[in-house]
Amino acid sequence: MDLVAGIDIGGTKTKLGLVNQSGACLLDMNFRTREYPDLEDFLDKTIQCVHELIEQCSTPVNLLGIGIGAPNASNTRGTIEYAPNLYWKGIVPLLDKLKQRMDVAMKVTNDANAAALGEMQFGNAKGMKDFIVITLGTGLGSGIVANGNIVYGFDGFAGEFGHFAMMPEDGRVDGLGVRGGLEAYVSATGLKRTIMHLISKYPHESRFRGVAFNDLHGEEITEAAEQNDPIALMAFEYTGKILGKALANFTLFSQPEAYFLAGGLANCGKWIFDPTQKYMDQHLLQMYKGKVKILPSGMTAKNAAISGAAALIWGER
Amino acid sequence: MDLVAGIDIGGTKTKLGLVNQSGACLLDMNFRTREYPDLEDFLDKTIQCVHELIEQCSTPVNLLGIGIGAPNASNTRGTIEYAPNLYWKGIVPLLDKLKQRMDVAMKVTNDANAAALGEMQFGNAKGMKDFIVITLGTGLGSGIVANGNIVYGFDGFAGEFGHFAMMPEDGRVDGLGVRGGLEAYVSATGLKRTIMHLISKYPHESRFRGVAFNDLHGEEITEAAEQNDPIALMAFEYTGKILGKALANFTLFSQPEAYFLAGGLANCGKWIFDPTQKYMDQHLLQMYKGKVKILPSGMTAKNAAISGAAALIWGER
Repeated sequence: MDLVAGIDIGGTKTKLGLVNQSGACLLDMNFRTREYPDLEDFLDKTIQCVHELIEQCSTPVNLLGIGIGAPNASNTRGTIEYAPNLYWKGIVPLLDKLKQRMDVAMKVTNDANAAALGEMQFGNAKGMKDFIVITLGTGLGSGIVANGNIVYGFDGFAGEFGHFAMMPEDGRVDGLGVRGGLEAYVSATGLKRTIMHLISKYPHESRFRGVAFNDLHGEEITEAAEQNDPIALMAFEYTGKILGKALANFTLFSQPEAYFLAGGLANCGKWIFDPTQKYMDQHLLQMYKGKVKILPSGMTAKNAAISGAAALIWGER
Repeated sequence: MDLVAGIDIGGTKTKLGLVNQSGACLLDMNFRTREYPDLEDFLDKTIQCVHELIEQCSTPVNLLGIGIGAPNASNTRGTIEYAPNLYWKGIVPLLDKLKQRMDVAMKVTNDANAAALGEMQFGNAKGMKDFIVITLGTGLGSGIVANGNIVYGFDGFAGEFGHFAMMPEDGRVDGLGVRGGLEAYVSATGLKRTIMHLISKYPHESRFRGVAFNDLHGEEITEAAEQNDPIALMAFEYTGKILGKALANFTLFSQPEAYFLAGGLANCGKWIFDPTQKYMDQHLLQMYKGKVKILPSGMTAKNAAISGAAALIWGER
């Protein structure tokens, strides 16, 4: 059976799986990225996992290649460069080193581009030529499709909306040190920061007055909003307002037909979608009004990143 | 001789010319757009000019088509929509009506996209696959090229950086009513507004204390800067700071290899290029540093818009 290995390298976990032509992930496994601070060990472990997956498969596997999604990855050079959430610093020659260990077709791109490829081939963006996937996890990632192709940029680092200085310079500082950077407000972490900000600013009662920042989780904030916790309600409104205005502005770049929201914060459903839509519509220029959709990702949450990475190889066939 | 008619429809003037395969404009003429408030009259005049140009040509002309650059134009529908600087309001079915008058291939896109096409085919962007042209005239326009193609967007309205809300909401209001919109600061008009702002804010001596807003011209501001007029020097620094920071942020979108500055304000040379470069470099993320150029347009100022519009047709051959 023809299969592609999809690998998603994240700051916390590395996920691997075997993906068929329909984008279904037949087998998967994962390990903790941080247990392999030495790059060579990490690469050995990764290739070992690919072999294990192939052995576990009930039918003989014809491996067509390996697609990889990773933060700060350059598709043109096959590298990971200056990724703030990974141990390996500077420029990591990922593909060169992996190819020394296994001789198959390999491609890498950043995780949000992989999500966009997955959405186009297997998800809710089938048939669309101009759309943007926004991944709302620890940070905010973006994968841009224009004229039916991923926008990679001059050397592979296009689509980094998370670090757009949307907010004033005296605002929050994001993971790369950008003052007023979007992901400091709009991401799972941003939502937690907003809860703390609102507790500092307003006197309203809230269950979150008894929770430390490190113990806060997105699901809990959704639950609190459903129970009318005023701080939780305000936090979603605040987040949606910033994201909605940002999406209205980003429309000036590539006029996408739709934005797809994916990742942890997108799982909060109407609490994030509704205010985002409201404020985007409010800020869109006349010529865009009624033409830009905000949609949920069509990739099943669990293996979206793996299938998206595999789309790098399937898309070439 | 095979030629293409290039037409640039502007708020003040409409320029027409016959352009050869090398982008040279062999013959040109222009008329005042505002003298034709009735759309049908304007279209008649336009086609009449095309015929006159053909007749004036010393050798027989084989007209391959007409390429048109216009504000707020949709390439997919052949329309001009809600252009704030034109008389004809709402949606203008430009190509449908022109084709009733002359049966040749016709294409339209916004003027900044036409400038980008011209730059790619005839100017300084030859061989580049990812670049952005910024036109700095009455307003600020942008034409984005990614993967070697113009980014038109879902229905033709991509590339409207001029209305990006880069500045705070209590800042200047731009021509489309956007609060903090970029073109209210960075354009020929924006520079004039900045002169007035600085005169209101600082006590420094300046020749501009004796000049009314309506009498101010860009060349005069350049001349004043060369004579060390403190308000003129501060105005260029202020403008370059905002544009430089904006370009650093826009790099997060499509990571262009270069920005080309074109139009009236770009003619101020080092006064605008130097601070823009300085502040862009200061705000670029690590992974982009040293990789993004700011370059002058390679199109001769006079007929850039005509040759760019003609590139719409030449590019298809």
